[in-house]
Amino acid sequence: MCVLGLGLIGGSIVRAAAGAGREVFGYNRSVEGAAGARADGFDATTDLSEALTRAAGCGALIVLAVPMPALPNMLARIHEAAPDCPLTDVTSVKTAVLDAVSEAGLLSRFVGGHPMTGTAHSGWTAGHGGLFNRAPWVVSVDDHVDPEVWSMVTALALDCGAHVVPAKSDEHDAAAAAISHLPHLLAEALAVTASEVPLAFALAAGSFRDATRVAGTAPDLVRAMCEANTDQLVPATDRIIELLNHARDSLAANGSVADLVDEGHAARTRYERFPRYDIVTVVVGAKDWRGQLAAAGRAGGVIRSALPTLGSPR
Amino acid sequence: MCVLGLGLIGGSIVRAAAGAGREVFGYNRSVEGAAGARADGFDATTDLSEALTRAAGCGALIVLAVPMPALPNMLARIHEAAPDCPLTDVTSVKTAVLDAVSEAGLLSRFVGGHPMTGTAHSGWTAGHGGLFNRAPWVVSVDDHVDPEVWSMVTALALDCGAHVVPAKSDEHDAAAAAISHLPHLLAEALAVTASEVPLAFALAAGSFRDATRVAGTAPDLVRAMCEANTDQLVPATDRIIELLNHARDSLAANGSVADLVDEGHAARTRYERFPRYDIVTVVVGAKDWRGQLAAAGRAGGVIRSALPTLGSPR
Repeated sequence: MCVLGLGLIGGSIVRAAAGAGREVFGYNRSVEGAAGARADGFDATTDLSEALTRAAGCGALIVLAVPMPALPNMLARIHEAAPDCPLTDVTSVKTAVLDAVSEAGLLSRFVGGHPMTGTAHSGWTAGHGGLFNRAPWVVSVDDHVDPEVWSMVTALALDCGAHVVPAKSDEHDAAAAAISHLPHLLAEALAVTASEVPLAFALAAGSFRDATRVAGTAPDLVRAMCEANTDQLVPATDRIIELLNHARDSLAANGSVADLVDEGHAARTRYERFPRYDIVTVVVGAKDWRGQLAAAGRAGGVIRSALPTLGSPR
Repeated sequence: MCVLGLGLIGGSIVRAAAGAGREVFGYNRSVEGAAGARADGFDATTDLSEALTRAAGCGALIVLAVPMPALPNMLARIHEAAPDCPLTDVTSVKTAVLDAVSEAGLLSRFVGGHPMTGTAHSGWTAGHGGLFNRAPWVVSVDDHVDPEVWSMVTALALDCGAHVVPAKSDEHDAAAAAISHLPHLLAEALAVTASEVPLAFALAAGSFRDATRVAGTAPDLVRAMCEANTDQLVPATDRIIELLNHARDSLAANGSVADLVDEGHAARTRYERFPRYDIVTVVVGAKDWRGQLAAAGRAGGVIRSALPTLGSPR
């Protein structure tokens, strides 16, 4: 397999996959990343043509682990040099990547992925082979997805120690807006609101520090995440503004925030009790397998060992 | 001194003050609380008249540690039986308490307080003498405040191991709205928003769990805090809605959340670098001492040992 981009995620995949006994080679644009990988005993180059020619020659699974802005150019090079290789990615938004892959003419062999883990640091040296242990790794089950490529990508995630959550790309992005991007906007807005109240920072302690922690993330990273998911983040923001407006009006008129507080507590309680279970019975490639996996993912199902495949003995 | 209410905070004050060598007696309405305190070797009764008569007899500092709804009746009883005793409280909102004390005709000997600590548990058994160690304890410096009573309340907080932050009651409440009550509303609203997105709970992990943690607090407690601070919480909520609306419109129109993210990151950075220093030079009772202390509190000053008092040798 071939990993394009040896930063935190790509570099960690190289280590984890090699640790699982896979043959892996990597490409990184900067000399530092490739040299770091080679110094640690891995197979890496700064020559993209060389990497893609090699991938095409052995039909390697290609993992796109470059930042979103670098994606269109990278996809064009893959289309030239290795158009038939199975292809996945590790980007934190899925619909925008799906659109870019489709525009590049590479959809038929593409299955999107998103390992949901990370650290505050970046680059080859920040990575480690245990980064994906027990982490959720979304593998997309969009309508175009090929069963064979899907099983290859799932096998990679499992080899890296992750738990696979099957999901449609648009549902992934809607969930990411609610659980990740919106919390970032709230933390930023709370920090600004408190900064305008003279005594607030003097009295702020544990709960405020926790509630604004992600506002300490580099602005460029927060913008890249949020802005790449505009279509889902706008309605999520609309909804929370609606809830806050309702609570504000009820507080001003009746001195009560009962509705919001009761609903919020009930929702948090449902989250705490949300069931998790192992998906084991869906047969990859069977009738409506993608829809079955999407439904199972929504219901809390995760894949922790390879699923049966249509036509293969188990 | 006399502590009225032997729950988490009152019970912890009894322990900490006794541990510092003070003579303390307590009152609790329920037999369990008073019996618990007596079983642990403290002086406690369920007879309010007895406690107040005793307090009046020795001019004891009275600490109001009962829930907000019990306050008006308790103040009426104090006005009858011990109107000249110095008086403080430990309630998490300060303006509403100030108003109730004023209505009860007890303002001249009252100095409000708020030890900013707690646990998820309540009642005598939940308390402990170390609860206030290094915690901020707001002691109010409103215009009516008497220097002698102020020094008594500050001495109690220091004896309990706390760091005293001097503040005006309305500024305390505005800060509490921004750093405590508003974060509660945001957590509730975020939990509701995510609960409506099919895949959200399935993918939610660390950052969502942290961002909604306080939505797990009992709804009655959240309502009591927020609704007692309506006058400050409404404008704080208006402000964050304004910031979110601006970000939402900018995202929808230009695909950018730059303004909010840049301002939020700058505000969080200012919070991280907010200076803390010891207030040592203000002379209690000197000209404009209350205003000087309020300004020092706003600027990050804390009191960790008794301040000089006008007319007293240091």
